[in-house]
Amino acid sequence: MSAPTQRVTIKDVAARAGVSKGAVSLAFNGKPGVSDATRDRIFQAAEELGWAPNVRARSLSSGTRVDTVGMAICRPARLLGLEPFYMEFISGVESVLTQRSCSLLLHLVRDVDEEIALHQRWWQARQIGGAILVDFRENDPRVPALRALGLPAVAVGHPSLTGGFTSVWTDDATAAAEAVRYLAALGHQRIARVGGPVGLGHSAIRTRAFTEATRELGLVGDLQIATGYEGEEGARATRSLLLRADRPTAILYDNDIMAVAGAAVATELGLAVPRDLSLLAWDDSQLCRLTHPTLSAMSHDVHGFGADVAQTLVAMIDGEEPPSHQVDTPSLTPRGSTAPPRR
Amino acid sequence: MSAPTQRVTIKDVAARAGVSKGAVSLAFNGKPGVSDATRDRIFQAAEELGWAPNVRARSLSSGTRVDTVGMAICRPARLLGLEPFYMEFISGVESVLTQRSCSLLLHLVRDVDEEIALHQRWWQARQIGGAILVDFRENDPRVPALRALGLPAVAVGHPSLTGGFTSVWTDDATAAAEAVRYLAALGHQRIARVGGPVGLGHSAIRTRAFTEATRELGLVGDLQIATGYEGEEGARATRSLLLRADRPTAILYDNDIMAVAGAAVATELGLAVPRDLSLLAWDDSQLCRLTHPTLSAMSHDVHGFGADVAQTLVAMIDGEEPPSHQVDTPSLTPRGSTAPPRR
Repeated sequence: MSAPTQRVTIKDVAARAGVSKGAVSLAFNGKPGVSDATRDRIFQAAEELGWAPNVRARSLSSGTRVDTVGMAICRPARLLGLEPFYMEFISGVESVLTQRSCSLLLHLVRDVDEEIALHQRWWQARQIGGAILVDFRENDPRVPALRALGLPAVAVGHPSLTGGFTSVWTDDATAAAEAVRYLAALGHQRIARVGGPVGLGHSAIRTRAFTEATRELGLVGDLQIATGYEGEEGARATRSLLLRADRPTAILYDNDIMAVAGAAVATELGLAVPRDLSLLAWDDSQLCRLTHPTLSAMSHDVHGFGADVAQTLVAMIDGEEPPSHQVDTPSLTPRGSTAPPRR
Repeated sequence: MSAPTQRVTIKDVAARAGVSKGAVSLAFNGKPGVSDATRDRIFQAAEELGWAPNVRARSLSSGTRVDTVGMAICRPARLLGLEPFYMEFISGVESVLTQRSCSLLLHLVRDVDEEIALHQRWWQARQIGGAILVDFRENDPRVPALRALGLPAVAVGHPSLTGGFTSVWTDDATAAAEAVRYLAALGHQRIARVGGPVGLGHSAIRTRAFTEATRELGLVGDLQIATGYEGEEGARATRSLLLRADRPTAILYDNDIMAVAGAAVATELGLAVPRDLSLLAWDDSQLCRLTHPTLSAMSHDVHGFGADVAQTLVAMIDGEEPPSHQVDTPSLTPRGSTAPPRR
């Protein structure tokens, strides 16, 4: 629950100016109660420490909208729909924003350059009070561009990817290793993974953790296929895995819609789940409970994750300095799709 | 493709003022090229006819954001996620907005009063250039409230529900009747429907069409259950239908996630799809192609529907007067989940 980088806070400004935190707040909010001389000393201390006036203060002085939060999702122009993950995540974000009569400004972008330009436009036009940043890549170009902007933002991703932004993340490495250990404990020796895009940071983290866990447990090979998260791709990847001479007896998926598609491919090929093939999903939306057999999953509270991210951003917009923190690690929910392999 | 109500247009204003359409446009856009006397005559003609200056003009004169479109979706506070329909619809809306560097301001609201207040706030704060209104009910209170506001809006729904808003809709009555006729043609006598909430206008339209079609075809009973569109509710409704002594041999669902849930319930109860039970979905997202057997569906291009609605709103914001119109009627896509009943 501690911030990964040392940041200058309102306390430091107060200490340097020799006043209380309340006085700093009054000064930056343009409220009475501090003399002109004190106000000047506070502003000078803030400037020397490189402390930016908080967003609420900025809003009061500049008219920035603090009741609107921006979020861009990078997807191809022709997209059949958002994944269940984002549906639940956005629903969680909205559950917090709604309580504060805030709205979400949502935009699908085609690439990271468009996303950077969008945030610049939103911020400079004072359309948003802050932003939620998702889908971090390694050496993400948004980090330098958006940090330079001074945009209040919460990054959804591990601090190793988010370059000093206040971050909220799940421990994907631990969860991926737990998934492998569970399937191995059931007796599976050939375990495959149908993963997300290689370029995405959290996908890379899961890929490395999967490789390490299979090696540590002495399992056969390191069978992983990268996809773009779409159900059709999950179906194709599953088919190619199941047509191998040394087909896996268990498959871990990076989301749930690909696991649903994988179950249909197994049926199509005459394989019974879980007798001939175990399937383990990730994210665990309602989809996993609507299939027969129901799908075992690495479940986490995606709605709660979105709510936590929104809460963190809202605190930041209110001028607080919420720490970066990890939310609950996805944990195993065994259901009907996992069992020991047939001997 | 014609507007259902007679509306005053820029042509009428031009005719009454004895000028060209171009001159009216110049006057309202504050551009040079019309004398003060002509401008006054134009403004007077517009006022007499009750013609509102177009949105672009309003924007130029008032600073309203024409690059942001608002959309509220009414759902309970704790919601597991948006339905596939809205994921695809929003994705279609965004595909048009993205081309124009416009963004969607999205907000989940708890009830219609909150939605009305939200639109009033958005419009009065000049945060949006227009709105997309969805989920119309009979005698919808948004109609008088938002029409009084003068908010440019496109209503997603049949003109019988949307009270004079420019509307875009699908012909749900025709599609529901086609679904019943198809299942009857396969030989089904006991056909049930798992529908949406009774209060929703398009759900009521489908309910009436289903009743009429079953009566016309001389089918057994009028077996319909209303739900809230969630998968779990679809599962419960299916279970209750299949446990009846006179269980139906075919079920029509109002969306696809409930049909997926229905297929799992059939398997759970030892019924084979389609041998013992035919299932017909609605909306046809990628889910219908990811199950085994694949799901037959009343398919329509939800992405294209969203794009059409956004295009209509964008034209309106640009000062055009796009007509209300119907998009393609959902049509039958037979797949693996429908067949003649077992004798």
